[in-house]
This record gives sequence, C-alpha cells and structure tokens, in this order.
Amino acid sequence: MPNIKLTIEYDGTQFKGWQIQPKDERTVQGLITETFYKIFKEKIKLIGSGRTDSGVHALGQVANFQTQCEKSPTEIRNALNAYLPTDISIVNAVKVSDDFHAQYSVKSKTYRYTIFNRDVRSAVQQNHALLFPYDLDLNLMKFEAQSLIGTHDFTSFKGNNRSEKEENNVRTIYSIKITKKNNLILIDVTANGFLYKMVRNIVGMLLEVGSGRVPKGRSTNVLKKKDRTLSAYTAKAHGLTLLKVKY
Amino acid sequence: MPNIKLTIEYDGTQFKGWQIQPKDERTVQGLITETFYKIFKEKIKLIGSGRTDSGVHALGQVANFQTQCEKSPTEIRNALNAYLPTDISIVNAVKVSDDFHAQYSVKSKTYRYTIFNRDVRSAVQQNHALLFPYDLDLNLMKFEAQSLIGTHDFTSFKGNNRSEKEENNVRTIYSIKITKKNNLILIDVTANGFLYKMVRNIVGMLLEVGSGRVPKGRSTNVLKKKDRTLSAYTAKAHGLTLLKVKY
Repeated sequence: MPNIKLTIEYDGTQFKGWQIQPKDERTVQGLITETFYKIFKEKIKLIGSGRTDSGVHALGQVANFQTQCEKSPTEIRNALNAYLPTDISIVNAVKVSDDFHAQYSVKSKTYRYTIFNRDVRSAVQQNHALLFPYDLDLNLMKFEAQSLIGTHDFTSFKGNNRSEKEENNVRTIYSIKITKKNNLILIDVTANGFLYKMVRNIVGMLLEVGSGRVPKGRSTNVLKKKDRTLSAYTAKAHGLTLLKVKY
Repeated sequence: MPNIKLTIEYDGTQFKGWQIQPKDERTVQGLITETFYKIFKEKIKLIGSGRTDSGVHALGQVANFQTQCEKSPTEIRNALNAYLPTDISIVNAVKVSDDFHAQYSVKSKTYRYTIFNRDVRSAVQQNHALLFPYDLDLNLMKFEAQSLIGTHDFTSFKGNNRSEKEENNVRTIYSIKITKKNNLILIDVTANGFLYKMVRNIVGMLLEVGSGRVPKGRSTNVLKKKDRTLSAYTAKAHGLTLLKVKY
C-alpha cells in the first residue's frame, strides 16, 4: 500500500491538541482521520511526528499513513482541504518509501515560541503570542540559552503531569535562536527530540533570566540537579508553534 | 473637559466594523463606549479617525473623546483593558489639546493589505491574510502602483454601495510599499485619506496586473475614466489592517 506523507498547518486555538482523545474532543489527528473516512470510506492510521498540546499551533507538522486509495497525493491533499475546517490545512502530500515513519524517522524538530513584549496586551496576537509586559535583556537570554545547547539530561525541563513514563530524558539541542522584531521576540529551538513541555519550560527559564528575576547561569545548575521541581514556570501553550520536522 | 486620545488595536474578525450600528451589532466603537459607561457611568462621544469595515483589523486606530473623568489617561486605559474583550486593546491613552479631533486632524493614514501567496490556504493566517494561489510578479505590481501615487481623483477606486455621498473623490497617495517575506506579500499604502473600499480596490487591481490577467498601465486608464465599474474586484476585508494614523 502507498505510504503518504502529509505536511500539516493548523491553528491550535480551537483544538484539544494533535492526538485523538478518548472523549469526543476536537483534535487535529481525529479530524483528519474522520475527514479521510468521510471522503474515501477508508479508516487510516495517521502517525504524527509527535503530539502537540491543546492551543499549540503548527506550520509544519508531519504525519504519514498507508492507504489503498488510488488517487494521487495531490488529489488526496485537495480533497482533504475541501472538507477540513479552515483551521487545518494540508500543505503538502507526497508518496514516500514504505519504511518512512513520521515519528521514528525524525532527525530534528524546530519549535518557535513567540513573545509579545509590551506593557499592554495585543488584540491581534492574542492566540499566537505570550504577553510578557516586563523588560527583557536579549543578551542575557542568549547567554543563558548557550548552556542548554548540546546533549543533556533534560529531566529538570520536563513537564510533570505526563501519565506515561519516559525512561530516557537525554536530548540534543542543536540551536536556540533568539530574535526581536518590533514587539515580538521569537525563540526558535531545534533539537533531535523534545520531552513533554520542554520548550515551554526552557522559555519560562529564559524569561526569568532575561527579566532579571533569577541570575544568569541558573540553567546549568538546574540541568545538573535533574529535578523538575527546580525549573521555572511553564510558558503558556498558545505562544508555541511547531515550525518544521526534518527527516 | 479633558480631551483624551486613544490608540486602539483590534482583531476585526468578530466585529461588524468600527462604527456603532443601529442594530445590536458588535462594533469596536460601540464596545468601547459601553465599557467606558460601565466603569465610569459617563456617556462619551468617541470620535474615530474613520470607519473600518467588518473584518478589517487595526494596530493603530485612533479615537478621541472628552470626559469629566478625573483619572489619569493611563488609569483610564488600564480600566478599559480590564473590562474590554481580548480582541480589543487600548494601546495608549494621552491627554491632548482641546482642538484635537481624531477625524478632522488626520494628516495621513497607512493601511496594510496582507496577501498569502501559496497554492494551499493558510490555517494560521486564515483571518488575517487573503489567499492568492497564483503566481505574482512583484515588479509588475510595483510598476503599476507607481501610477496610483500622487494626487488623483479616485472615483474609479471607490466602493459603490456606500449610502452617503462623498462629493470630493480627490486624494493624495504618498507611498505604496510592496514587500515579500516567505509566502506573505505586504502592500502598505499611505495617503492623506481614503475613499470607501479604496485600498481593497487598489489591491484588487494590483493582483490583476501582478498575475498577468490585465496588462500593466491599466490603472492610469481606469483613473482617467472616473468610473467605478471599470475597477478590478474588491479584495476581501480580512486582509486589511489599519496600521497607523498620523496627526
């Protein structure tokens, strides 16, 4: 059976995240699967590169599925887009080799966290950027980010309300780029993989250091301790976007 | 009575435009006026720099009102933001001289039209950019824009379903800047004033020329004829943002 790889954009505001939920929740995986069934009368198993939480957006989520459908990938893409709600868009669909697996074949992922740095909230960015109304020293944030780059045990930066156990908390961060344009501060983190809430916990730490609430160098100590209770607060989901998945 | 000038940001998606409507519609002017009354028990007359249509956004709409309220402008701003819905934000409030009038004192306005130029729709930009799925020649668009800059009678670029009569259709466009970043094309138009739907009609024309559907130079002919039926289609409201008003 052909193996189809989808590149998916979604606005996470109205979704309970990527993954199908037991209850009747609105999820991206759920809606794409249902829509495929509605059009082609085939139940597919849609494998995502990973979950995204409720409120998290994606410009380049990737998923794959095997299908008996004989339409071309572009025809499948167009059919899905015609029936999906406008807060999901299938950007691309291509045939890939049988051994391509959207989760296991990942080489790296890039997440972007967007901060709206002004004393007053943004109306237009309300669902796409975290309001941070205090002064931020970007150089301090960049300095702090340096100590997170590389291969580390990120236990201290892992969310603590995950039911399943992840044995191995070692990940490699390839880069953290911090840029500012007008009131927006963008933090792009690329790694070989991410623990649950890892980006949002890193951003929380960078905001604490950047605003002078904790001294620079804290990340190194916190990493060493491997204790998730030592981390900063978790930055809210709506500022986070899955930009890109590389294979 | 103190005269207060507000700078207002709003996401136009859920509004029936700026101006209070006779019916019970959700408008920006209506909500700010109601909210002020709710907090300070005073009926203000809020004068905007001009109307924006249903679906049009603003980063820098300006309005003024006279008030008996003895709070500082910043206290008024903060109180309004605390009670307004999150798709409106009062960015700034300052005291201005008695003769400041948000509509009559305008020197120039800048509108931005955002085009999402890809073959597939954007989920994230769905309410903030027009999807245009065909190739666009930016140089052609820039060439065409040149013939609209300057002082002209813009009758041909005026919307035709406006009830009120505007006698004088002469306006001066100071600049039209067209830039591209990834899939986004931004068209920033600055003028001393705009006729109803003028920006959206100009954008419609630039899209027609840029995609090769009409030959370049069309704008000059259309301007000369002073006939609104000769203009291109009106680009949809949700791509339009009022960026800035200068006084």
